[in-house]
Amino acid sequence: MIRHTVAFTLVHAPGSPEEQDFLTRGPELLRAIPGVTDFTVSRQVSPKSDFRFQFAMSFADEEAYAAYDAHPDHRGFVAERWQSEVARFEELDFVAYP
Amino acid sequence: MIRHTVAFTLVHAPGSPEEQDFLTRGPELLRAIPGVTDFTVSRQVSPKSDFRFQFAMSFADEEAYAAYDAHPDHRGFVAERWQSEVARFEELDFVAYP
Repeated sequence: MIRHTVAFTLVHAPGSPEEQDFLTRGPELLRAIPGVTDFTVSRQVSPKSDFRFQFAMSFADEEAYAAYDAHPDHRGFVAERWQSEVARFEELDFVAYP
Repeated sequence: MIRHTVAFTLVHAPGSPEEQDFLTRGPELLRAIPGVTDFTVSRQVSPKSDFRFQFAMSFADEEAYAAYDAHPDHRGFVAERWQSEVARFEELDFVAYP
């Protein structure tokens, strides 16, 4: 099991309709892609970081993760929204230790 | 519910006994602190980041989080191990959107 996470900050004003649209329509699209499980949308609330949101999702294995990455709906979302609406982001992926 | 996470890289050599000790004894101590739930230890596996591990835990509310932060076992772990064995870290805390 792999937990794929991305913390990000949007170019939109906090609380704006554009922010809300990104945070609701993005997940609607992405969580429907085959292999995606436990998709969550979070606010980042630590004052030690200026990231404001996080999308996170789980994949059973690397193959499912790769299929998501290559899926047209994912690629389209990145091209049409992510690249223009996200100001800064960080991807972290986790597997259980050890 | 607040998910408190910290991604980090140790000063120890990968696969060393010192690394293993930090990753097993730290969680043993921290997960026993009152208010801590769902404590996880993960490897960070995205090649897009050089953080190598993550501790994550949940708290019911800000009060439980603050009590953990102030707990002597947490403060002792930070002073005795974290400050000397962690090379770099990032804290991110999450609550469900909206």
